Amino acid sequence: MNTADLGLPVAVPSTALFTDQYELTMLQAALRSQNADRRSVFEVFTRRLPEGRRYGVVAGTGRVLDAVENFRFDETILGFLRERGILDEPTLEWLAGYRFRGDIWGYPEGEVYFPGSPIMRVEGTFAEAVLLETVILSILNHDSAVAAAASRMSVAAGDRPLMEMGARRTHELAAVAAARSAYVGGFHTTSDLAAGFRYHIPTVGTSAHAFTLLHDTERDAFTAQVDTLGRGTTLLVDTFDVTEAVRLAVEVAGPELGAVRIDSGDLLLVAHRVRQQLDELGATHTKIVVTSDLDEYAIASLAAAPVDAYGVGTQLVTGSGHPTCSMVYKLVARAQSDAPDAPLRPVAKKSLGGKSSVGGRKWAARRPDENGVAEAEVVGVGEVPAELAGRQLLVPLVTDGKVVAREPLDAARDRHIAARAGLPLSATQLSRGEPVLPTEYL
Amino acid sequence: MNTADLGLPVAVPSTALFTDQYELTMLQAALRSQNADRRSVFEVFTRRLPEGRRYGVVAGTGRVLDAVENFRFDETILGFLRERGILDEPTLEWLAGYRFRGDIWGYPEGEVYFPGSPIMRVEGTFAEAVLLETVILSILNHDSAVAAAASRMSVAAGDRPLMEMGARRTHELAAVAAARSAYVGGFHTTSDLAAGFRYHIPTVGTSAHAFTLLHDTERDAFTAQVDTLGRGTTLLVDTFDVTEAVRLAVEVAGPELGAVRIDSGDLLLVAHRVRQQLDELGATHTKIVVTSDLDEYAIASLAAAPVDAYGVGTQLVTGSGHPTCSMVYKLVARAQSDAPDAPLRPVAKKSLGGKSSVGGRKWAARRPDENGVAEAEVVGVGEVPAELAGRQLLVPLVTDGKVVAREPLDAARDRHIAARAGLPLSATQLSRGEPVLPTEYL
Repeated sequence: MNTADLGLPVAVPSTALFTDQYELTMLQAALRSQNADRRSVFEVFTRRLPEGRRYGVVAGTGRVLDAVENFRFDETILGFLRERGILDEPTLEWLAGYRFRGDIWGYPEGEVYFPGSPIMRVEGTFAEAVLLETVILSILNHDSAVAAAASRMSVAAGDRPLMEMGARRTHELAAVAAARSAYVGGFHTTSDLAAGFRYHIPTVGTSAHAFTLLHDTERDAFTAQVDTLGRGTTLLVDTFDVTEAVRLAVEVAGPELGAVRIDSGDLLLVAHRVRQQLDELGATHTKIVVTSDLDEYAIASLAAAPVDAYGVGTQLVTGSGHPTCSMVYKLVARAQSDAPDAPLRPVAKKSLGGKSSVGGRKWAARRPDENGVAEAEVVGVGEVPAELAGRQLLVPLVTDGKVVAREPLDAARDRHIAARAGLPLSATQLSRGEPVLPTEYL
Repeated sequence: MNTADLGLPVAVPSTALFTDQYELTMLQAALRSQNADRRSVFEVFTRRLPEGRRYGVVAGTGRVLDAVENFRFDETILGFLRERGILDEPTLEWLAGYRFRGDIWGYPEGEVYFPGSPIMRVEGTFAEAVLLETVILSILNHDSAVAAAASRMSVAAGDRPLMEMGARRTHELAAVAAARSAYVGGFHTTSDLAAGFRYHIPTVGTSAHAFTLLHDTERDAFTAQVDTLGRGTTLLVDTFDVTEAVRLAVEVAGPELGAVRIDSGDLLLVAHRVRQQLDELGATHTKIVVTSDLDEYAIASLAAAPVDAYGVGTQLVTGSGHPTCSMVYKLVARAQSDAPDAPLRPVAKKSLGGKSSVGGRKWAARRPDENGVAEAEVVGVGEVPAELAGRQLLVPLVTDGKVVAREPLDAARDRHIAARAGLPLSATQLSRGEPVLPTEYL
């Protein structure tokens, strides 16, 4: 059994069934029509950003590389496909030997993108490339949606740390990927232990209301927590009365108390009151953490409040109103015949309803203005103009079936900060607007 | 290594790390304060339905049972927690022997719910029950959100089959759970092969635009597909010109052609035109499948159109605007001491901002009116009134740590249809409104 690393403590099986059935029936029909070996180019792009958003954030690239490496059809999987009568024997035999041997290029993880940006390009035979559509889109559509929300929240939070706490609001494994994407988008820590295990993201967490309610008094609860987690811990102060709890917290832990957490009420008002109370009690270094249904707007509204850190859950893991991207995986060029050197011909759906595509194998570059600020996303087919040659966005990710672009998650996180900083200032406005860069087709 | 079945071809590891860190630090502090063994009752409920929705749908219960059974701390996991310095040695030792030995009650899967419905109740020591919070909420919040959307779509579709096609729009494993939830909510098939493998849901799929574009002509593509998949296949007719493609499809496959699929354009208009053309060509039994960014409203708008089946993706797996439920897991009662027979005392957070809870171990029943139609969700603490005793909604799911309520997925699907049919007729209006049943507290 081949294995894949999907964010779990140990390896888990092949990614090959994370696939829509039609990828396999198309393979079968292409094998039958003897067109399966035509060299083909598929591109991942989106026709639009979510309404009002200024930029997108590429995330999940590292997970795509894992998924492609582990896309194998073992006996268990082949047996399932055979038993269900989904495929014929020649196709099953072909799948038994499958591994992707082509090339993948893409925007590196953390980079920003715009409508039409060719975020990923998969090149190989039709047969080997078509099979990867579903799993690549699943990963990029999910992870990029979370990273985009994270990026906006990190803009709103400025220098204050952001904690990812959304595991309970999404599928248990989507949560692990969401924590990873949040980190790429600018978050600092996660509450999700599986994300800490798999991606080495720092984990945080101390206590919930249940812990206070378990004890006979709030004092018992605070004392127990400080005894075992130390004075630097974060005490939750809104189970009963916030003022009384803050007083008690400082009495129990002393002015060395690490932080208090507020999870309900008017956070702006309560934070000011609690800050004043902490200062009066001499706990001037005790921090205030807030965690109540925050999104980028709520975070921004607390910019002037004495808040030291934000914990964000629901709105982060659901993409702050846009839980998925609309990325598609389209055949944009293919050879005229099976011959390995047959020339590529651009292809595109030509239909009504705004679903047309631009054919041809594309390059992309971000053109700066005279001050070095990005002014356009330039996408073209054919020769790259000399002045843009050094500014190309697609990099090799897989070459001849080998992953060539593994990197630590921090590299993607740093890249995102740099890429965002290279955009016009209006990119970081939270208000609704157009994409901050126009996409120009050459 | 303990294993869990998470929708994959083979077993994968423990679910114990799908957990927020604070569950474990609370455990450590409760062990230290010697309150960890207090008998405790946690309940899962939501304070509100998504805005405008008439009812919720419980889904994921079967997955919760798997997750609880496989919630174990093996050496790999304990090593991680030790190395990161998250827990002390006594807590790690306690976790090494962990398995849930308490009781879980819940609304059976497929049942409907309302604000305040105690959808699940977990009873055991504080220590054993608090640990399950995150993974239980992850599963129920995700799966129930998808099932609610599926249920509305199935109402809109009436007798026409619904195909789940959303894998590419969500995390690759969330997609498997989404296909399962869609089936519970009334869908008939899925495109997701992993969902077919794991949950035995019938899978469907034939071809995409890439298949047509791979070939030199649309005729070549249709011929190849019919040759290998048979005349009963579904041909995609909107790559170039729909009218020409429909003519060609019937020419290639004959009037026995199974179906044509339309994935773009004004579906209402196009479906009428295509139906007329198919009939004129003698293909009177050839079906029309539509699949373009559908939601329950779009499905309803096609009720009078000659459409035979719907494929739904994005809006299904993202909960049609509500990608997560707002279910919480709250301590509602706990013993006064460690003694196994110590009486339970209701507890509840009392705070500002609408986050208060109702304390006490609850029962729930759905009260019918004189015609047998449900008229209220009744939730109470203490004795169940005699007239409601036979209408209780909570059933035993886990008893003394043993799962006692495994069932085939079809049982949940059938239950949902029956539960929905027992609601007032206005439950199935798609328009925004209040929950169709009021929740009464006794």
